[in-house]
Amino acid sequence: MADKLQRSDVTLDTIVSLCKRRGIIFPGSDIYGGLQGTFDYGPVGAELKRNVKNAWWRSMVQERFDIEGVDTSLLLHPAVWTASGHVENFTDPLCDSLGPSRKRYRADHIEETECAKFVLVDVTDNAAPKTLDTEIWAPTKKKAKEFFQQWYEKALGLEGRRVKIEEVEGSRTTGRFSPDDGGRLTEARQFNLMLSTTLGPVEESSAKVFLRPETAQGIFINYENARATARRKLPFGIAQQGKSFRNEITPRNFIFRTREFEQMEMEFFCKPGEFCKEGEQSDMEWFEFWRNERLQWYIRYGIQPANLRFYDHPKEKLSHYSRGTTDIEYLYPIGWQELEGIAHRGNFDLTQHMEHSGKDLRYFDPDANTHYVPYVIEPAAGVDRAMLAFLCDAYREEIVTSGEEGEGGKESRRVVLGLHKDLAPVKAAVFPLLKNRPELVETAKKIAADLKRFTNAVYDDTAAIGKLYRRQDEIGTPFCVTVDVDSMEDQAVTVRERDSMQQVRIPLDRVVAYLRDQLQG
Amino acid sequence: MADKLQRSDVTLDTIVSLCKRRGIIFPGSDIYGGLQGTFDYGPVGAELKRNVKNAWWRSMVQERFDIEGVDTSLLLHPAVWTASGHVENFTDPLCDSLGPSRKRYRADHIEETECAKFVLVDVTDNAAPKTLDTEIWAPTKKKAKEFFQQWYEKALGLEGRRVKIEEVEGSRTTGRFSPDDGGRLTEARQFNLMLSTTLGPVEESSAKVFLRPETAQGIFINYENARATARRKLPFGIAQQGKSFRNEITPRNFIFRTREFEQMEMEFFCKPGEFCKEGEQSDMEWFEFWRNERLQWYIRYGIQPANLRFYDHPKEKLSHYSRGTTDIEYLYPIGWQELEGIAHRGNFDLTQHMEHSGKDLRYFDPDANTHYVPYVIEPAAGVDRAMLAFLCDAYREEIVTSGEEGEGGKESRRVVLGLHKDLAPVKAAVFPLLKNRPELVETAKKIAADLKRFTNAVYDDTAAIGKLYRRQDEIGTPFCVTVDVDSMEDQAVTVRERDSMQQVRIPLDRVVAYLRDQLQG
Repeated sequence: MADKLQRSDVTLDTIVSLCKRRGIIFPGSDIYGGLQGTFDYGPVGAELKRNVKNAWWRSMVQERFDIEGVDTSLLLHPAVWTASGHVENFTDPLCDSLGPSRKRYRADHIEETECAKFVLVDVTDNAAPKTLDTEIWAPTKKKAKEFFQQWYEKALGLEGRRVKIEEVEGSRTTGRFSPDDGGRLTEARQFNLMLSTTLGPVEESSAKVFLRPETAQGIFINYENARATARRKLPFGIAQQGKSFRNEITPRNFIFRTREFEQMEMEFFCKPGEFCKEGEQSDMEWFEFWRNERLQWYIRYGIQPANLRFYDHPKEKLSHYSRGTTDIEYLYPIGWQELEGIAHRGNFDLTQHMEHSGKDLRYFDPDANTHYVPYVIEPAAGVDRAMLAFLCDAYREEIVTSGEEGEGGKESRRVVLGLHKDLAPVKAAVFPLLKNRPELVETAKKIAADLKRFTNAVYDDTAAIGKLYRRQDEIGTPFCVTVDVDSMEDQAVTVRERDSMQQVRIPLDRVVAYLRDQLQG
Repeated sequence: MADKLQRSDVTLDTIVSLCKRRGIIFPGSDIYGGLQGTFDYGPVGAELKRNVKNAWWRSMVQERFDIEGVDTSLLLHPAVWTASGHVENFTDPLCDSLGPSRKRYRADHIEETECAKFVLVDVTDNAAPKTLDTEIWAPTKKKAKEFFQQWYEKALGLEGRRVKIEEVEGSRTTGRFSPDDGGRLTEARQFNLMLSTTLGPVEESSAKVFLRPETAQGIFINYENARATARRKLPFGIAQQGKSFRNEITPRNFIFRTREFEQMEMEFFCKPGEFCKEGEQSDMEWFEFWRNERLQWYIRYGIQPANLRFYDHPKEKLSHYSRGTTDIEYLYPIGWQELEGIAHRGNFDLTQHMEHSGKDLRYFDPDANTHYVPYVIEPAAGVDRAMLAFLCDAYREEIVTSGEEGEGGKESRRVVLGLHKDLAPVKAAVFPLLKNRPELVETAKKIAADLKRFTNAVYDDTAAIGKLYRRQDEIGTPFCVTVDVDSMEDQAVTVRERDSMQQVRIPLDRVVAYLRDQLQG
């Protein structure tokens, strides 16, 4: 319950504002008024993103015996997306308003509402009122009037004329109408979400290629090359991180749904249960394994378990080839939303690529002495969504009681990002208590330089110590080191921990080793 | 001189072949016959690429006090590329053959040659020979005949007819003609190298955006956001790594010139010399600093100095805004080629973005008490080109003399990648001498697992020990650890170093710490 209560305190606006203020995330192309659905990671955000990616790579590749990494091209042969089904099926249903706004909508995002039809009657010439050939659909006359003023008056050139809005009797009906201008909506059409470009010097249709909408297909088409060169037997996985692009109609909720985003995907190739020997894990067991493993990863890096849950897709909604799909959902400030998907993709992708490429991608199983196409379990995470979850979960505001941290006994508020130390953008900040004392400055810089040999540390002397602590709290820096006047006497410095705000005195010649232990332990 | 001699031994084909054989680099979309100008990095290559990028980030961001990192969008507002000059000037001159091949060429890549004009005379009807309205330009009649047979006969529907090829007297001239079909070439037209795509649900010209051809502009447009949030004074730099795209007409030389590639760029914002106080480094001094710093970086990570050189662009060939540009060239197997460029960009980019965005990007200098636009020094490196240089420089073949490494006294050849330990894809490989002895297998796996906590280690038991050593040599693994039968007795293992092939016996309980020291020292 406590978790829930805390969650409801954090709004997306609070996070967006912190991100902009502290150089974590800026709107893309900000100085040009922005480019919808894109974001730029600033100095602090770039480090956070690197850390999230490295934490994933560490857990998914480095620490394991059974996973290889790859890094494949964003531009793939167009046949890849025909084989994968993206050309045909990777679509959203779209419809347009027939009203003057011409706005476009995801058809499945527009609710059915009960509206009445209103018509416009030009009564400028009282003697000869004229009903115009225009319809406005709205729940009330008041709403119809708003639509008229916002859109129709100007579009129809009715400024300066006297116009009455009249409800057409018996027109009240339930259907889909534009919530922006009261226009009728067209039938839904399928709109492909892949971005395309033209490769090569000649603009011919044959040179049309797509920017990948997922990193997974780059793994599938390299499956046999990677397996053979790495001399792998089943089961084993191939992991990849990288940018993907989707032409989302309505990018929204900050970095939650964007048109350019970064993925962390792993395809785990395993034996179908029927080929497993006694004691070998079947495909369904691997599916269970990865569901759990991925949930634990978020907990390992600091997400509160109460803010995570599984959503198992109902069997009847699965793709024909899937034997199970589970989303890991996170309680974002906007509600429970997908953070990562774990899908049992059967042998669909490899089979499709076999058919379309003509290459044999079957696995020869020496134990069963037969060939078959491996089954695939796919944990697919988004770097940006993970970052947003880590930021939201780590955010807290606290009242700091009197007397602490040189604030002169006043109560004050502090914002803290309680990030896991492996994710914290800056690991340690070093300050001289007085910037006009060269020996303090020099000592502080020396400590920072020594720390920088193995981790991301900063030196700062641009404010009073209390303020410097607050700045580091806001970006989640686990440790601050202060060199004060006493340091020259006792050859020791103060190390202050972020969450407890506890300060310990550590000898100068041991402070780097001390922090190394704290950070890498 | 020794370096030069060694260099000439390594051909690009040798590297390409190693890369494919050992899972370093595959052609992009390989199973679909490839996609020109794209490459996929396999299990070993993905780690090498990560290491090159991390080594750069470490030197350029982590270890320094004056550089911030960012990670900006690949898709930028189209106005960015108008401001930067890319829309107008980022072009190659192209021309087309008027002959039947319709081939397209980089106009500046086609040499002027002396050719004569040939015409075709249809002599099927001896009594009425007919000269066709077609011209073929070739240095010799033999060549003109080849062109005719390859292209014209079919294109003009002349199969089965008797055709004479006649040189037109007095037509011999020096000019540019298609080397493929002898057609005249059209005048050169400027062809923009940026790839474009359409963002948003409606295909309108306003939604046309470009895939960035360089990461630098993402830095410039975030300059003020990054500077302000990081509270920076001049001089300081902003660094970024990421993918860029150029629609190269003729991608070639493996990963040297591709259509999709990865960059590592840093923009260093500094005071123009005239505003520098006594003792402050001027822009030209920073230019010198970064030229040298970047050269040293390649040497730090193992490139032989003899294979590196500066090429200073002559003053008269510089852009109007540049005060100097130097390439760091590497002696690739294809000759000396640009590895990295260091450019003094003056205040061109920020000034352009000020004008086009209407945002004030001037710096207020508290010392000089005035505003000005900073100067920028840009070291711009390519990840793929750097990888290729590291691979070529590290490659060597050696004859291993008799008696070594369990090869039974025979002479044999070994291929070694003498990569710097920080770049090596695998840091340590652990083998059991006998895979049918569970205690050896278990011990080896335990060591590998302990190593994997902090570095990229592998366990392998799929071949005899000599072969396992060779495999690791080929991908540059600095250390191999063998658990043998004696290990159970003396509680020690053999650690074998890649370059010297020397073996030392290390106690089991110290081997992980020993390797940690060797790798991180």
